[in-house]
Amino acid sequence: MSTYKRAIYPGTFDPITNGHLDIIRRAHRMFDEIIIAVAESEAKKPMFNFAQRVHMVKAVTADLPNIQVRGFNNLLVNLSDELDANIIIRGLRAVSDFEYELQMGYANASLKKELETIYLMPSLEHAFVSSSVVRTILNFDGKVEHLVPPKALELIKCER
Amino acid sequence: MSTYKRAIYPGTFDPITNGHLDIIRRAHRMFDEIIIAVAESEAKKPMFNFAQRVHMVKAVTADLPNIQVRGFNNLLVNLSDELDANIIIRGLRAVSDFEYELQMGYANASLKKELETIYLMPSLEHAFVSSSVVRTILNFDGKVEHLVPPKALELIKCER
Amino acid sequence: MSTYKRAIYPGTFDPITNGHLDIIRRAHRMFDEIIIAVAESEAKKPMFNFAQRVHMVKAVTADLPNIQVRGFNNLLVNLSDELDANIIIRGLRAVSDFEYELQMGYANASLKKELETIYLMPSLEHAFVSSSVVRTILNFDGKVEHLVPPKALELIKCER
Amino acid sequence: MSTYKRAIYPGTFDPITNGHLDIIRRAHRMFDEIIIAVAESEAKKPMFNFAQRVHMVKAVTADLPNIQVRGFNNLLVNLSDELDANIIIRGLRAVSDFEYELQMGYANASLKKELETIYLMPSLEHAFVSSSVVRTILNFDGKVEHLVPPKALELIKCER
Amino acid sequence: MSTYKRAIYPGTFDPITNGHLDIIRRAHRMFDEIIIAVAESEAKKPMFNFAQRVHMVKAVTADLPNIQVRGFNNLLVNLSDELDANIIIRGLRAVSDFEYELQMGYANASLKKELETIYLMPSLEHAFVSSSVVRTILNFDGKVEHLVPPKALELIKCER
Amino acid sequence: MSTYKRAIYPGTFDPITNGHLDIIRRAHRMFDEIIIAVAESEAKKPMFNFAQRVHMVKAVTADLPNIQVRGFNNLLVNLSDELDANIIIRGLRAVSDFEYELQMGYANASLKKELETIYLMPSLEHAFVSSSVVRTILNFDGKVEHLVPPKALELIKCER
Repeated sequence: MSTYKRAIYPGTFDPITNGHLDIIRRAHRMFDEIIIAVAESEAKKPMFNFAQRVHMVKAVTADLPNIQVRGFNNLLVNLSDELDANIIIRGLRAVSDFEYELQMGYANASLKKELETIYLMPSLEHAFVSSSVVRTILNFDGKVEHLVPPKALELIKCER
Repeated sequence: MSTYKRAIYPGTFDPITNGHLDIIRRAHRMFDEIIIAVAESEAKKPMFNFAQRVHMVKAVTADLPNIQVRGFNNLLVNLSDELDANIIIRGLRAVSDFEYELQMGYANASLKKELETIYLMPSLEHAFVSSSVVRTILNFDGKVEHLVPPKALELIKCER
Repeated sequence: MSTYKRAIYPGTFDPITNGHLDIIRRAHRMFDEIIIAVAESEAKKPMFNFAQRVHMVKAVTADLPNIQVRGFNNLLVNLSDELDANIIIRGLRAVSDFEYELQMGYANASLKKELETIYLMPSLEHAFVSSSVVRTILNFDGKVEHLVPPKALELIKCER
Repeated sequence: MSTYKRAIYPGTFDPITNGHLDIIRRAHRMFDEIIIAVAESEAKKPMFNFAQRVHMVKAVTADLPNIQVRGFNNLLVNLSDELDANIIIRGLRAVSDFEYELQMGYANASLKKELETIYLMPSLEHAFVSSSVVRTILNFDGKVEHLVPPKALELIKCER
Repeated sequence: MSTYKRAIYPGTFDPITNGHLDIIRRAHRMFDEIIIAVAESEAKKPMFNFAQRVHMVKAVTADLPNIQVRGFNNLLVNLSDELDANIIIRGLRAVSDFEYELQMGYANASLKKELETIYLMPSLEHAFVSSSVVRTILNFDGKVEHLVPPKALELIKCER
Repeated sequence: MSTYKRAIYPGTFDPITNGHLDIIRRAHRMFDEIIIAVAESEAKKPMFNFAQRVHMVKAVTADLPNIQVRGFNNLLVNLSDELDANIIIRGLRAVSDFEYELQMGYANASLKKELETIYLMPSLEHAFVSSSVVRTILNFDGKVEHLVPPKALELIKCER
C-alpha cells in the first residue's frame, strides 16, 4: 500500500533560480505533492519583497501539476504541522551549504522527531547557481537569463 | 495519481551498523519499497565476506516489510536498469563523505540521466558510527553492541 | 611540581547554550580555574545586551566552583595579559567553525607567542546547538528548553 | 612565440595586507603585467573608503614595475572586457575561501567563456592573514605591523 | 619585456581524462610551454603501466603545439631543477583535493622557495571527472567515452 | 586544589616530525605529565618498524622532563584505563584531519564517557608537515632536515 507523500520545499527564493527549479522538478518525480514554502525572511533584507518572491515562484511553476506555492513566516516545524507534511526537501551544493543544512536539519529534528529532511543534488550545470550570485549580477545590470527561469526574468525586469 | 516508488540503498555493509539501519528505517517511511544492495567489493578486502554481509543485512531487516536484500557486483546504473528503480538512497555524515557522494552522484548521472540520488541524514546519535569504526574496535576485541544491531552482533560473534 | 592552570573561555554567549555549558564542564575538569569572558560584541548587534548576557552566564555557572565570569571589550591577547592566563579554550563543531577558529588562533599567536588555544569537542547531543539556532527559534517563539540551561531559559523569558 | 600576458587581481583591499602583497609578487613573476582592481564594494561598508583603499594599494606597489592600480564598480567580466585581460588572479587560503572562489569562478565563466581564473597560494607565514583579521585588531587599537606593508601602516595611522 | 614561461603539469594520469585535457588546454593559453610530467607512481599500483600512461598522454596531446610529455620518478623539486621550470600547474576539484594540494604545495615550497604552484579550475562539465571514477567504471566494463579523450579510449580498449 | 593531570598523546609517528614535537612541547606546558603512546599499527605497513619508531620518539624527547614514551597495540580506551589517564591530545592540521579526529573522538567517547579529547594547533611553520610528506620525500632521497628533529634524522639515516 502506497500512501500519499507530500513534501515541503522551503526557501527564500530571492529570486527563484534555475537551480531551484531543477530541484523542484526532481522532487516532483519522487513525491505526490510538493509545497513550495517561500519564507518571509524580512531580517535578511531581501532584494525582492515577499509578495514579489511568492509571485515569481507561482509564475515559474504554474505549469507543473501537484505543486502548491505559499508564503510562511514561522518555524519549519510549525509549518509542517499545519500542512501535515513531514518531508522537507533541500538542495545541496557546496560544503558550506552542507554543514549549515546539517545543523538546521538536526535543530528541526530536535523540535519534531517525525520531520525528515532529504537532500537533492542539482544537475551539474546548475551547481554554481545561487540567488546570491544572481543578485550580485543584477546589481550591476549584468546578464542573468542563463541563471533564472524565463518567467522569473520577466518579473525581475518589471520590478527593477 | 501516486505511482509506486522503489528505491535502492547500496553499500558494502562491512558490517551493517545502527547508522545504516537508521537510514533504512527513514527511507522506508518515504518510499514504497527499499532494495538493499550489498556490493561484493572484493577490491576493498572486506572484513566479512560477501555471503556473510548479505546474510547479516537480511537478518537485521527481516522484520521490516517491503524490504528486499540482494548482492550485486556491477555498476549502480546497471543494477538500477535491472531493478527498474531510479532512486538511489545514500546516508550522509561528514564533509568528506559529502564530496565523495557528490562526485559519485554526478558520475552516475552522467551514465544514466534518470538516476536520482537522494541523501538522508542519520539521527545525531548515529552520526559518528561507520563500518570502519566498528571494524577498528572489532580488531582489538572491543565493545560494539552500541554500534551494530543485535542480530548483526550475533553473527559477528559466530564468524570471528 | 604542578603549577596552577588558569584558562579563558571567551565568547559572545548570545545566549549561553547547553553546548557552551558542556564545554565549560569539560574544561573545568582539566584546568584549575576557568574564566568565562563574555565579549561585548556590539558590532554583532546581539539579541541580548551585554549586561543580560553576563548575567545569564553567571546564573548558569553559579554552582560550579573555580569559575569566574567577566565581560571584556578588548583583544584576547590583552585580556590574557590582564588575567595572566595563556590558555584559551574553544569549542569546535563544524568545519566552518574549525577554519575560523584556526585563523583566529594563528592571528592571536601572531600577537602573543605564549598564547595557546585548545579546542574541545562538545558531546554528540550538543553538536548541533548554537546560539544562532537558539535565536532563530526564539524569534518565532519556538521551544528552546532542550537547548539552553534552565537558568538561562528563565532569564530569556523575563527579558522578552 | 610568447604573447603579452596581462592579469587582473581584483579585491576590496580593506586594507591591503602582507598576504595580498605576497600574491601580487607571485603573480608578477608569472605574467607580464598585473592590474590590481580595487572594488568599490560600498555594500560591504568597508572600514576604509574607496579613495583610501586605492591610495593604499598604489603606495604599497609603487616600486613594482608593470603594475597598474585602478578602482572598479562593475562586474569582473565587464572590467576584463574593458582591460582586454582574460586572466583573473585569486589568492586561496582556507576551505571556505575555496568554495566561494569556485562558485564565483563558475559564475564568471558563465558570463564570459574566455575568462580564466587562476588561484595562488600565499606563503605559509601569510596563510592566516586577512583584511578582516586586520580590521578586528585595528578596532581594538592592537598591533598590525606584522600583518600589513609599512606604507599601508602609515596611511592607516593617518586615517584613524 | 616578456620572458619565456615554461610550466609543469604533473600527475599519474591513470588514465588521462577530459578533465586533465581541459586543464592542459587552459594552461596552454597562459604559458609558452607546458611539460606534462607523468609520474611512475608504482606504489599506487596503477591500472595502466608507466609506458601505457605516457603513451596515452602523448597520443591525446599530439596535436597541441608547445607541449612536451615525459615520465618522471623523482621529487617535483628535482624535476623542476632539471627542466628549469618553476611553475607547477594543478587542477582543483573538491575540498579534499584542495587540502591535499595545499599541503603538497607547502611541502614543495619548503624544498625550493622559487617553486610556484598555481591552481586551475576545470570547466563545470568536467568537475566530477577523475581517473578514479574512470577506473571504477572500466572495472565493470561501463561506458567512459564521455569521460576520456577519444585517443585515450582507443588505447584503453587495446590494453584491456 | 589542583590535581595531577596526565595526558596521552597517541600516534603512529612514522616517523616523528617537527610538527609532533611542537604539539608535545605545547601539551607539556599544559599538563603535568605526557605519555607518548606509539601505536604498533602493523596494518598500515609503516616505513619504520615498531621498535624503530619507539626508539626515535624516545631519542627526540629524552631531554624533556615528565615525558614517558611507550608502545601500544590496543584500543585507546584500554590504554587510558591502564594508564589511569583520561585526557587524549591530538594535533589538528587540516579539515580532513578534523573530521577524522571528530569521528574517532566520538567513537572513543562512546566506549568510555570520561575520555576527553583535546585538540592543539601546531605553529604555522609546521602546519603542513606530516609523516606522510616526510615519507614521500625520503622515498626519493630528498631533504627532510627541516621537517624532522635532528635526533630522528640521525636514526633515519642509520636505518635506511
